[in-house]
Amino acid sequence: MDVSVVGSIALDTVETPTGRNEEGLGGAATYFSLAAAQFAAVRLVGVVGEDFPAAHVELLRSKGIDLDGLERASGKTFRWTGRYHEDINNRDTLDTQLNVFEHFHPKLPPAACAAPFLFLGNIHPSLQTEVLEQAKASFVGLDTMNLWINIALDDLKAVLRRVNAIIINDSEVKLLTGESNLVKGAKAVRALGPRIVVVKKGEHGCLLFGEDDIFSAPAYPLENVVDPTGAGDSFAGGFMGYLAGCGKVDSASLRQAVVYGSAVASFTCEKFGPDRLAEITRHDIQQRFEEFRKLAAF
Amino acid sequence: MDVSVVGSIALDTVETPTGRNEEGLGGAATYFSLAAAQFAAVRLVGVVGEDFPAAHVELLRSKGIDLDGLERASGKTFRWTGRYHEDINNRDTLDTQLNVFEHFHPKLPPAACAAPFLFLGNIHPSLQTEVLEQAKASFVGLDTMNLWINIALDDLKAVLRRVNAIIINDSEVKLLTGESNLVKGAKAVRALGPRIVVVKKGEHGCLLFGEDDIFSAPAYPLENVVDPTGAGDSFAGGFMGYLAGCGKVDSASLRQAVVYGSAVASFTCEKFGPDRLAEITRHDIQQRFEEFRKLAAF
Repeated sequence: MDVSVVGSIALDTVETPTGRNEEGLGGAATYFSLAAAQFAAVRLVGVVGEDFPAAHVELLRSKGIDLDGLERASGKTFRWTGRYHEDINNRDTLDTQLNVFEHFHPKLPPAACAAPFLFLGNIHPSLQTEVLEQAKASFVGLDTMNLWINIALDDLKAVLRRVNAIIINDSEVKLLTGESNLVKGAKAVRALGPRIVVVKKGEHGCLLFGEDDIFSAPAYPLENVVDPTGAGDSFAGGFMGYLAGCGKVDSASLRQAVVYGSAVASFTCEKFGPDRLAEITRHDIQQRFEEFRKLAAF
Repeated sequence: MDVSVVGSIALDTVETPTGRNEEGLGGAATYFSLAAAQFAAVRLVGVVGEDFPAAHVELLRSKGIDLDGLERASGKTFRWTGRYHEDINNRDTLDTQLNVFEHFHPKLPPAACAAPFLFLGNIHPSLQTEVLEQAKASFVGLDTMNLWINIALDDLKAVLRRVNAIIINDSEVKLLTGESNLVKGAKAVRALGPRIVVVKKGEHGCLLFGEDDIFSAPAYPLENVVDPTGAGDSFAGGFMGYLAGCGKVDSASLRQAVVYGSAVASFTCEKFGPDRLAEITRHDIQQRFEEFRKLAAF
């Protein structure tokens, strides 16, 4: 089945302890699409400016990603600049230029509307609702961030009531619910709407909370993290893409989706930007999936 | 097979967001012994003062723990006072009174010397070496802490060269090796001697590093953590006790030992002090072990 995604497409400037990547291809929807395209047909909805390099468009198209929903607006592409610490689990945002993203109102082409799976990337929750109004998806996943929890909580709560799954990191669970215990926190998030709560814990893996069901997935023990940018978005893409690809959502497929998401995310960290993600094959992912099995077996 | 343990026996005063436990039974060797006794014969070596309640001695004896190595010295028992934060993963030590522990030099009775498994609890590394000189164990595990890494690094390195396994938490790995990446850090710890490195990550579970072998164990998703004091020591007791009980150390038994350790540790957090640990049965532990299987299955 198809999966549609709405979210940011960016030019990222990233500094890590090992190097620097100037105005590389970035954005949540970019990583999501490249990851999900390994498993299912992807329909990307987003906006870029006049300066967005044709090579990036070509890369996405070469992966079979449907770009009918890719709007090119007058102005400059969204830019993000960040610097990672020596402990690469931490980073600072140095600069954000919304540019064409500032006035973006997603318009879904017919095929994107019709996709049975939909992912609402990390954009203002009122825009996420606008997308929901257009879409006919039967399974909707959502990402959000501290900013929206802080400044648009009512809008966020409104859209949360209408989605099936949320993918959220542990600090966001605490901020959203006030619970420092993640089990209680995830229950509180479920009470806001989504029946499936996926909590990303970075280097500590991931927890999946469903109906009387908890799954704990390890993180892949990466020795050299080159650039973690987009790891969370790649996770979401692997997760949603796998579910769309197998076309059913139950405890078994959700658990596997979490591991496929984790596998894809681990590749993303191995090179700058989406470079590694763009070169891996379904076979590479399957090999890593089997490594996850060994990692967790007892 | 038997397991000997050398470490602290204490009277702990603990405050948590849900309550307070005044001068309760505590100490690393206490938790270790109660946990390990679920799996193997335990020989406890430690020191208490004249004020140590007879009821605590009775409790340990009732669990079949060999107390021939329990020295009663003139003076007061070691005391620790701590307060847990609202986020119960963090705590402050409010007071430490070493008392009889200050001049403790462990003397192992013959049966404790002869035990094939030995655990060197978190005491000064030069004392750990003193114990090693007496013992005939073929498998030795060790715990340590930030304090010894900071003030007795050479002594610690000397004893590390002589042990088979270290049980250490993630922040200690970083302090000991200077590596913020845990995979690199664990490799660096292995280069110091111990071929088996068990990294405890609290609510994020545990990583086991062996010969070309990594195992990631989830933490049990506890909704109500009453008092985490002794969880790490209970983990060590379950881990070493299980290995001693099955009498062999290989990848399969080590992985199971990590899960049994995690299971026992999760019980410890459910009540103040060792109250829960003292009441559980081998059957309870087995049930929780099966819950870990479900938690990690995909």
